[in-house]
Amino acid sequence: MSRKVAVILSGCGVYDGSEIHEAVSILIALDKRKAQITCLAPDIPQVTTVNHRTKEKETHPRNVLTEAARIARGKIADLASANAADFDAAILPGGFGAAINLCSFAADGANCKVEPSVEKFLLAMHNAGKPVGLACIAPVLAAAVFGRQGMNPELTIGTDAGAADKLRQMGAKHQDRSPTDVCVDARNKIVTTPCYMTAAGPWEVFQGADKLVEEVLKLA
Amino acid sequence: MSRKVAVILSGCGVYDGSEIHEAVSILIALDKRKAQITCLAPDIPQVTTVNHRTKEKETHPRNVLTEAARIARGKIADLASANAADFDAAILPGGFGAAINLCSFAADGANCKVEPSVEKFLLAMHNAGKPVGLACIAPVLAAAVFGRQGMNPELTIGTDAGAADKLRQMGAKHQDRSPTDVCVDARNKIVTTPCYMTAAGPWEVFQGADKLVEEVLKLA
Repeated sequence: MSRKVAVILSGCGVYDGSEIHEAVSILIALDKRKAQITCLAPDIPQVTTVNHRTKEKETHPRNVLTEAARIARGKIADLASANAADFDAAILPGGFGAAINLCSFAADGANCKVEPSVEKFLLAMHNAGKPVGLACIAPVLAAAVFGRQGMNPELTIGTDAGAADKLRQMGAKHQDRSPTDVCVDARNKIVTTPCYMTAAGPWEVFQGADKLVEEVLKLA
Repeated sequence: MSRKVAVILSGCGVYDGSEIHEAVSILIALDKRKAQITCLAPDIPQVTTVNHRTKEKETHPRNVLTEAARIARGKIADLASANAADFDAAILPGGFGAAINLCSFAADGANCKVEPSVEKFLLAMHNAGKPVGLACIAPVLAAAVFGRQGMNPELTIGTDAGAADKLRQMGAKHQDRSPTDVCVDARNKIVTTPCYMTAAGPWEVFQGADKLVEEVLKLA
């Protein structure tokens, strides 16, 4: 049976949006398993625009949904108008966008705020017993949404001790993982993988993303 | 032996730059085979900026190299300063950027002009007996550069009769191919695959790109 999967994006580019290799690897792995993919993103301004060539900030504003539409080839909808009841699973790639546009983790650490449409959608998925997969830095969203509500999620963001500490401060358990492996919290139906938190290149990212998708679909 | 491969990008996004799924699939397939990847792009303004959500043109200008840096995660160089002698092969993904930024095929068809650094690099690779791989609409560049010089390249851009006709007008032979197959012109060391000219989704794109990379590396 074909599973309906929401892929939640945060822009287009590792330094101010979704990490592109991770997002595309997830789309390939989902399509390979004949999932019905719906790309979603919040219709909000990006917190910043980073010139990916110079790493300097640009002044011209960009919109998270509009830029994410580049990864989605135009087929994308506003997360705020999406209904969790329409999906069997949700997957979030990483990239700095997950930590600046989808929540304020990059600025506020364990005290981060989560973008309202993201929090609402993730909670609705979880409350309906549906799995959520998160890659790279995106697991901070699971810690912020589920950890702080006392669900004790088990997550990986690779092997970064500082970031792992912040996950623990939000009530999550951290598990070290290599980039081609995943952390499966079967009780909470949360699957995580480090991707570019530790991956050396796109082939390791693809392998981790492929395993993430496999485990998420098993729980769906 | 690890092969040095130049991946030539044209921006970031199917409607005004490199098609992202194709570009990432090529990077994954190269990294899987332990190739040393160098992303390159011309340092020129994009011909247009297209809002990928609305498909409307935007007025704020973008730069081909700066946007391509998003796909390359910042590791990218100006094609004009790259030396073909440093590479064993070159691969070009598609996306509208290949037909508007790298050449003017979208506007001028068989009379298109090729961006000078692209033409110079492709000719230098060819003259050194090194293979060039092109996906989706990018094979029009091989027709424009090699076909018009009488090298009779054999190319595929899928099954589009109109586009195939324009390739023939530039001196190329067109071969119909499915999205998971490639056209190998062993004599000219040119490999092409249709990707999103005919592919139904990212998994077909990945399979075609993976085969493209395999055949290009065999010729390198």
